Amino acid sequence: MNKIVIVGTVAFDAIETPFGKTDKILGGAASYIGLSAANCSADAAIVSVVGGDFPQSDIAILESRGLNTEGLEVVEDGKTFFWSGKYHNDMNSRDTLITELNVLENFNPVVPDQYKEAQILMLGNLHPVVQMSVVNQVQNPELIILDTMNFWMDCALSELLQVITKVNVITINDEEARQLSGEYSLVVAAQKIMEMGPEFVVIKKGEHGALLFHKDEIFSAPALPLAEVFDPTGAGDTFAGGFAGYLAKTGDFSYENMKAAIIYGSVLASFCVEKFGTERMIQVTKKDINQRLEQFKNLTQFTIN
Amino acid sequence: MNKIVIVGTVAFDAIETPFGKTDKILGGAASYIGLSAANCSADAAIVSVVGGDFPQSDIAILESRGLNTEGLEVVEDGKTFFWSGKYHNDMNSRDTLITELNVLENFNPVVPDQYKEAQILMLGNLHPVVQMSVVNQVQNPELIILDTMNFWMDCALSELLQVITKVNVITINDEEARQLSGEYSLVVAAQKIMEMGPEFVVIKKGEHGALLFHKDEIFSAPALPLAEVFDPTGAGDTFAGGFAGYLAKTGDFSYENMKAAIIYGSVLASFCVEKFGTERMIQVTKKDINQRLEQFKNLTQFTIN
Repeated sequence: MNKIVIVGTVAFDAIETPFGKTDKILGGAASYIGLSAANCSADAAIVSVVGGDFPQSDIAILESRGLNTEGLEVVEDGKTFFWSGKYHNDMNSRDTLITELNVLENFNPVVPDQYKEAQILMLGNLHPVVQMSVVNQVQNPELIILDTMNFWMDCALSELLQVITKVNVITINDEEARQLSGEYSLVVAAQKIMEMGPEFVVIKKGEHGALLFHKDEIFSAPALPLAEVFDPTGAGDTFAGGFAGYLAKTGDFSYENMKAAIIYGSVLASFCVEKFGTERMIQVTKKDINQRLEQFKNLTQFTIN
Repeated sequence: MNKIVIVGTVAFDAIETPFGKTDKILGGAASYIGLSAANCSADAAIVSVVGGDFPQSDIAILESRGLNTEGLEVVEDGKTFFWSGKYHNDMNSRDTLITELNVLENFNPVVPDQYKEAQILMLGNLHPVVQMSVVNQVQNPELIILDTMNFWMDCALSELLQVITKVNVITINDEEARQLSGEYSLVVAAQKIMEMGPEFVVIKKGEHGALLFHKDEIFSAPALPLAEVFDPTGAGDTFAGGFAGYLAKTGDFSYENMKAAIIYGSVLASFCVEKFGTERMIQVTKKDINQRLEQFKNLTQFTIN
């Protein structure tokens, strides 16, 4: 089985949506990516940092899904990264209420020895300097996937562009693709981003699905249309985790197989938004996943005579 | 071959986009729907009205593509419906500069005798009272498709709801589906609209494609991602025309075949936006269509083991 190293935040989130609100619950890019990749039976390790306030029970949740947490540093006298946000009624926009970096401010990621020869490296949203440090620790990965956001384009662009030269796949949302490339058309934006380094560009469009670009090829996956989106937090990371996890499980990094990986990521993201935070991701079963894969086939497949 | 009656506007459009501007050119819902349906080899008749200022050469264009224009009334002392609009830089929004109803104000549609037994009736965007008059003239259609817009929801809702009870398929855009149903979620919106009458609801999402709803089933078709959208005018009508034309050509009104019809509509709409107005629709060949159908297969089809 292919090994996968996931670096990103492990956090407390406090979320408010039109359906209710939570106290501090398990969150962070690496948690969502990891739980999603674990649902693909990937051999995945999380590299991150938390404070002494992080409950053992949350670490136990990650481990119970099969995630290796050796690389999850615990700073006993520090506090865990905390994010709080409130969604608007349409669930498509949100206000960030609180961001406390805490232990993340001095995070020096350490990849566990047994994962230094991992085949896949998944760089979750973090400062590009931290992402680069992990790139330098994994000896000879076959595939590096980068997720990032507009925040780093605004305040650490040159470091981000350095990381981008090192990766095979980049996953960003539509607005971020436009910002990074300076192009409105997503087709032109993806071409420009490929010129920066990655052979594959994945553009996440939320409820409108995702696009995969490679050379002159384009693949389009829808999001599952839902009667109710309960909490969108982590959907993008869950998508990236399912994408990476499927590639780890299959060990096939061809364009054709990346199409399937995009669908797998979309399937897992469709579960994520059904409950608050990571709640649904912890309960999802192989049977759930297979049933929803069938839904995606029905949603997209057609015959023209 | 199935006959199809198309009622809607035949107009002059003056369009301004970031790429340039046109004088008065051939436009209107029935023109776009008709030219698109004609590309599916449908036996289609246009029912509409123009003024004495409408050039014979434009009628010749419609006829040269195989459209029957017996039902295109010419009011010699009247002026043709005129619309002028300007697109913003992102091409996703536009301002209407001029709307002159002219001969449309007193339009009494007359369906030619030889089309009174048409199998398909396509009601393009027009006052719902005019749409209902055409419903009453076609004796026993197997399928009625309705396109409408928010304008009629604002100022002729009860008449529109009357027409909606009579139709099998409704095609509207996402914002209109939300307005008509009072629901934000498109899944819930489509369910509510189906309760108003139609067995099939098609929601057009522009660059994000289209959704087809029937009972508990959902099908999602992407739009072709384009490097450049030259002029979006008429794309929604062209989509509806391809959808209706494919159904007319195949004579199969099942849910499965409607999926193919949605793809066909998306293929034709992808040509429409490549040039100003109807220009591209007049040149498109069977070979062009078949090549783009292959592109849509590559864009959407995947294999998961």
